Amino acid sequence: MSKKKGSTVFLENKPRILETASIAGQKESEGPLGCYFDCVITDGRFNEKSWEKAESKMQRQAVGILLEKTKKANSDIDFIFGGDLLNQCVGTSFGLLDYSIPFFGLYGACSTFCEGLCLSAMAVDGGFAHNVIAVTSSHFCSSERQFRFPLEYGGQRTPSAQWTVTASGAAMVCADEGNFAITAITPGKIVDKGIKDANNMGAAMAPAAVDTLIKHFTDRQIDENYYDLVITGDLGVVGSSIVSEQLENAGLVLGNRYTDCGKEIFDIEKQDVHAGGSGCGCCASVFSGYIFKKMQEGNLNKVLVCATGALMSTTSTFQGDSIPGVAHAVAVERI
Amino acid sequence: MSKKKGSTVFLENKPRILETASIAGQKESEGPLGCYFDCVITDGRFNEKSWEKAESKMQRQAVGILLEKTKKANSDIDFIFGGDLLNQCVGTSFGLLDYSIPFFGLYGACSTFCEGLCLSAMAVDGGFAHNVIAVTSSHFCSSERQFRFPLEYGGQRTPSAQWTVTASGAAMVCADEGNFAITAITPGKIVDKGIKDANNMGAAMAPAAVDTLIKHFTDRQIDENYYDLVITGDLGVVGSSIVSEQLENAGLVLGNRYTDCGKEIFDIEKQDVHAGGSGCGCCASVFSGYIFKKMQEGNLNKVLVCATGALMSTTSTFQGDSIPGVAHAVAVERI
Repeated sequence: MSKKKGSTVFLENKPRILETASIAGQKESEGPLGCYFDCVITDGRFNEKSWEKAESKMQRQAVGILLEKTKKANSDIDFIFGGDLLNQCVGTSFGLLDYSIPFFGLYGACSTFCEGLCLSAMAVDGGFAHNVIAVTSSHFCSSERQFRFPLEYGGQRTPSAQWTVTASGAAMVCADEGNFAITAITPGKIVDKGIKDANNMGAAMAPAAVDTLIKHFTDRQIDENYYDLVITGDLGVVGSSIVSEQLENAGLVLGNRYTDCGKEIFDIEKQDVHAGGSGCGCCASVFSGYIFKKMQEGNLNKVLVCATGALMSTTSTFQGDSIPGVAHAVAVERI
Repeated sequence: MSKKKGSTVFLENKPRILETASIAGQKESEGPLGCYFDCVITDGRFNEKSWEKAESKMQRQAVGILLEKTKKANSDIDFIFGGDLLNQCVGTSFGLLDYSIPFFGLYGACSTFCEGLCLSAMAVDGGFAHNVIAVTSSHFCSSERQFRFPLEYGGQRTPSAQWTVTASGAAMVCADEGNFAITAITPGKIVDKGIKDANNMGAAMAPAAVDTLIKHFTDRQIDENYYDLVITGDLGVVGSSIVSEQLENAGLVLGNRYTDCGKEIFDIEKQDVHAGGSGCGCCASVFSGYIFKKMQEGNLNKVLVCATGALMSTTSTFQGDSIPGVAHAVAVERI
């Protein structure tokens, strides 16, 4: 089976990312990438009655912007792959309800955007679909309420804690339109190195990213100069430094070619986000808002995006479990 | 694109279900299908410290039995598609952790088993994988604790309420081994008819099943006699009677050729399960334990399995939202 080598699937028909769309919150708009997002919501409730409904509306709007940009109708879309961090992924199910597009719900925690891109790429490459959308979101307030403390409590955060990004990102993968192909994907396995600190997700997810990245470079037989940029999803300062170090130990010295969406989306020094951004919306909005535009502008030609997810729940943490991680890598290249 | 017609994908290379594995709880073993499950756990905790860990162990064991039956090693499996009902799908992430198989996490509520089969079929048919596993689980106690009341509270149940099945089912989809092909799949869209009663999931999910089933029969241009059996996932008595009626209104009179896993797994009269079984594990274990064995025995040759999911959470219910449903149909036929 020539399409797969090791853990990496090679997409022979070169499914393309035609366009992306992004929407972000006020704080995200004040960060270094603020000018790249298609839309900014200045009110965390987004004129809805709850943060959860606001998150759904962000996904709805991200997909709406994407359809507008690509001039496609709902009925042109074969499948939509979506997910989020909320229990039972209700951000997505209520967000996408009105589109009436066949729906595959995903849960890969913050790896969901790349999981969606992997599955979109295979669906299109295999000839099962012409146009597919991958979308995810996260919302600081709905995540804090669900995973941590009531916002009103004003809990102190540890230095390794990350700030859940309020954002949504969506990408359209097409069979024969667009200049940027998904050339290879490396879906990751679940990796658990025993980290139990829910305030240090970066460290918990880093080993999964290292595992997937090393497999990707090995399977493709490419060196550290192949990509213009390798970007992980939301490891933040702590997790991404672990990745850099462990990749170097494995002989893969990416240097400035490697960064992390959670590091890029905020001004870590000034925005009081501790170790950086996190959440499904982090990788989705940074890729859809920033990276893809840089590719369209001609500033980046070969990018490897590797979103990472922490596969825990409050229940598993209360029960003393460690935090398993997973990471999926997607190679996007100008053709 | 000849592979897709309407909402239905036709799998030209005929990916096969090589084998299935199932594991169920004591109550399920006392039902009419009890003798079909590969393994029964008599203790709800399955020698673990929590119900959640027991659920993970069920998934682990279902996959273990499947690997044994098929004489395949972990390393033979290209991808595993898994999910469950627990917040952040921790039943799956902790259950599958030790297998080190590239993992796609799904959340389709109780439609997850068919969602996994759809994606497995496309992955194999497209040549991206040789062997793929789809697995899901549910556990009465972990679900009650999360979605309803503490078990100790002994809450009364309404007649339309369903009993979450304690079970896991797994299926292996292969490129070129086995006698039962997945010939066509119809992934469903999200359908919301405004039902808000969380004790009547069957009614909430029925419209999604009707939508998907009508599309499937229309897209394939087949009549009501084509399949030996059409079986929905976990609509129970209430939901499946709605499906029967609405299909009849649409001119699709399946009669005795239609049933529902949630109706079949329990003796509705004697086992005090009100409207029947539900949960991700219901469809997974009934298909993997019962239906597939009936196919292997030669008693069924053409089966359409259509798992349904209710895409709500306790938060969405508390916030007064309705319950959107989704249903994915998978045609399995002897070749």
